[in-house]
This record gives sequence, C-alpha cells and structure tokens, in this order.
Amino acid sequence: MDQRYPSRLLEQAVTAFAKLPGIGRKTALRLVLHLLRQNEVDVEAFIDAVGTLKHDVKYCQKCHNISDTNICPICSDSRRDSSIVCVVENIQDVMAIENTMQYRGLYHVLGGVISPMDGVGPADIEIDSLVERVKDDEVKEVILALSSTMEGDTTNFYIFRKLASYDVKLSVIARGISVGDELEYTDEVTLGRSILNRTPFNGKS
Amino acid sequence: MDQRYPSRLLEQAVTAFAKLPGIGRKTALRLVLHLLRQNEVDVEAFIDAVGTLKHDVKYCQKCHNISDTNICPICSDSRRDSSIVCVVENIQDVMAIENTMQYRGLYHVLGGVISPMDGVGPADIEIDSLVERVKDDEVKEVILALSSTMEGDTTNFYIFRKLASYDVKLSVIARGISVGDELEYTDEVTLGRSILNRTPFNGKS
Repeated sequence: MDQRYPSRLLEQAVTAFAKLPGIGRKTALRLVLHLLRQNEVDVEAFIDAVGTLKHDVKYCQKCHNISDTNICPICSDSRRDSSIVCVVENIQDVMAIENTMQYRGLYHVLGGVISPMDGVGPADIEIDSLVERVKDDEVKEVILALSSTMEGDTTNFYIFRKLASYDVKLSVIARGISVGDELEYTDEVTLGRSILNRTPFNGKS
Repeated sequence: MDQRYPSRLLEQAVTAFAKLPGIGRKTALRLVLHLLRQNEVDVEAFIDAVGTLKHDVKYCQKCHNISDTNICPICSDSRRDSSIVCVVENIQDVMAIENTMQYRGLYHVLGGVISPMDGVGPADIEIDSLVERVKDDEVKEVILALSSTMEGDTTNFYIFRKLASYDVKLSVIARGISVGDELEYTDEVTLGRSILNRTPFNGKS
C-alpha cells in the first residue's frame, strides 16, 4: 500500500533504509522511528560506525578478506598452515568456517562466483590473484568451498582449469546429509552424493 | 553463536545495526556488507538521510505528529474537521488511519501510553496538551484510538477523567471481528464485544 508520510525527511530516511536487502518500507519505518527515539549521541554513533567502516575499510592484500590492516590477522598468523588455501565466495563464508574452529589454513575470498547471467566474468572476481598465490607461495592444497549451484560449479571448473598446470592438490568440501538430518527427508542428489562419497568408518562417529 | 569478525570496524558497524529492533547480528552483518558493496555516494546518502532526519525533525506543536513544519500539514489543512480529535499512541497509528482515507478530523499523538511497569506516567506523554486543546480549541469530539491493552485502557480512563469536566463527546473506536474473518476463529472477548456493540443494519453491508 502506498504510505503517505507526515514528513519529507522521514520519508527520505525510510526510503534509505528500505533499500537495504530484506527491509520493506514498514520495517524501515519502524527502524527509523526507533532511531528517532534514541538520543543524539547514539544516533551519531550509528552514523559514525557506518561512515567510518565505509571510509576506512581495507581488504587483505593476500586473501581479500575484510581487514583493518593491509594483511589480515588470519594471513599474518604464523601458527596457521599457509600451505592450504580455502577458496570461498564471500566474507560471511570465512566467518562461518572460522566459527567451526576446524580449519587452520588460509583463505582466498573471490568476492563472487562466475555468473554470465549477472554479468560476472572470471576477471570480475579474484581468480587471477589466486593463481598468483599458487604460483608464488608455498601453496600445496586448494580447497574449493563454493556453493553447489551452477555458478559455483562453473567457477570450480574454471579454477580447476587455471590451476591444472601447477603442482597443487585441488579438493572440494564434502557434500552429504547434515549431521542430525534424517535420510528419508534428504533430497536425492545429496543422498546420492553422500553414498558415492562415503568415508571409511573407524569406530567413531 | 559468538561470531569472530575479521575487522573491528566491521564489528562496530554490525553492533550498531544490531541495536535496531528486530535486527539480529546475522541480519546486521548482511546489511552492513550490503552497504559496503554500494558506492560511496549511496552510503553518504544513507548516512545523510538518517542524520538530517535526526537533526532537523520537528514535531507538530498542535498534534505532536512528526512534521517538517511547526504545524503539520494535517493540522493546517483547513478542509479538515478541527472539531474532532483522534487520540493515538504513535506516528504509525496516524499513518494507518490516514491510509484508510475514512477520517477527516485531526489527531493528537500521545507518544506512548501510561505504563507504570515501564515507568511511563501521565506526565511523560502528551495528555496535558490534549486537555489544553480541548479547553482552548473548538473540539467537540475526542476519539480514543489506543490499543486494547491494560495500558491502553488505563490511558483511556485517565483521559476520560481529565476531560470529564469539559463539554466534549468522548468515543472509542469500534472493536469487533475483522472484515473477512470467520466467527468460529475469533477470540471470545472480541466476539462478545462485537455482539454487545452491534450496529443497526441498513440493507448495505
């Protein structure tokens, strides 16, 4: 429904918020009125946090993860295994893998996947810099952790071709039934893959 | 889950967004990364819209609705019936009633309801200014359109007592079954009230 706003300034702020993903005009109005009820200092803090991030944000020159420094804490951590590089689509993926606390190698953030439909070609994402890293650094394994979509598969294959001439092991993360999920409700593709890619059972689960 | 952020600036921005109502840290991260992908001009526009609203916002001196001017467009509209004042809790309520296009009177925005639990007393909301309006202006009817909660009822009763000595008609908006709703799924209180407050049937629905 077309809302009529009592104030042009209010409407502008609502419009700005409604441009954010997943925020409709009703939610935007609620958020803006919430900010209006806060005191000036809190609103300044909100504005500052967004502005400072946008102005001062850096991306790691090595893995292209978001960072406050030229080389991110992960890449500069000498305790991490720099011979393994996990290729992910975006920053959230790095955070998700870091939260598992199961991975001690480095990352490479592509910043997207190859998607001709969206006009994203191999040159638009950080593939060349990945090849450079494999060429220059002591990378022994590249783990592909992109989403299992057509675009992800295309990107996987493109990277596979690009790295074919280098002495580097290429692997993809395991696909299978989620821990705790039931067989009967799993889609056929996932179930099929989890049978094909079965792993040796060593007595532990 | 405790997220570890690759950047302090990112974490600050996420924390700022996560303070907004209904926005968790995951959604906040998605919103912040979306803003990061926009160009500088768009982010400036976002920041400006919020900042300008906070700095320049006015509230109508008469009805306390948000406004760009000292007297809001509704209060200054001579075609509206200034003898009727509809008392609402907040700005969204004004917008909701305006959207029905069924009401041609004025408003009075309380800015809350009496709620001892939340430390909101009669002096914290715009009740005195409502009494002033009834005293000074040519108000003939006050419509109470607060939510039917204990706090709303308390506020209704407080206003009723405050306005008892003035020659003004007091009414509350009708409660009943929503248009299109089915009887059998309606709660007993609403159904009971809709029978008690039945209206004459004039052949039209």
